[in-house]
Amino acid sequence: MGFHDCSTDRGTRPDKLAKHAVFATPQMFLDVWCLAPGQGQDAHAHAGSTKFYFVLEGRGRFAAGGEERELGPGGVCWAEAAEPHGVRNDSDERLVLLVGMAPRPGA
Amino acid sequence: MGFHDCSTDRGTRPDKLAKHAVFATPQMFLDVWCLAPGQGQDAHAHAGSTKFYFVLEGRGRFAAGGEERELGPGGVCWAEAAEPHGVRNDSDERLVLLVGMAPRPGA
Repeated sequence: MGFHDCSTDRGTRPDKLAKHAVFATPQMFLDVWCLAPGQGQDAHAHAGSTKFYFVLEGRGRFAAGGEERELGPGGVCWAEAAEPHGVRNDSDERLVLLVGMAPRPGA
Repeated sequence: MGFHDCSTDRGTRPDKLAKHAVFATPQMFLDVWCLAPGQGQDAHAHAGSTKFYFVLEGRGRFAAGGEERELGPGGVCWAEAAEPHGVRNDSDERLVLLVGMAPRPGA
């Protein structure tokens, strides 16, 4: 168990999206991801896991299962096991996501 | 897969905390919970699941594994399998949480 303040997990990095771990248990992980303009995660899939992206700040373009949508704060995109998904920050501002996956890879 | 705008899931109910389902898959569920002042979820535990509360709006008092903490927006409290956890809105304002559990009960 634990407590964490995600409101200060806002750092980006120049080479790729920045992942700030919140917690990881045998059942799932939760991260805060910060994407500078132009950064993203290419479409991919996880064989046995559910993944979600929840927008905390900014706007991004999300893909899941062959559909695309632009989402702002409060928007969520999820992919079930084996469904391709990805995200791109094609805005001019930082994009901050709460990202969870269950079960986490390798668990 | 799917997309959802959680920013409009803000309804409370007078008798108990309001749960707005976002998605449920075999691996996890994600909800938005709205707690009016005075409402809460008493301490309890789930045998094989990880659960988290993430504060979207307002302030609440969270318990996990014998510790208590007051959290505001961006605060997260998580409990691993079998760890007792609960939340109470002892403020004067609505408390809005993103709540996830993996695996979901009964899955």
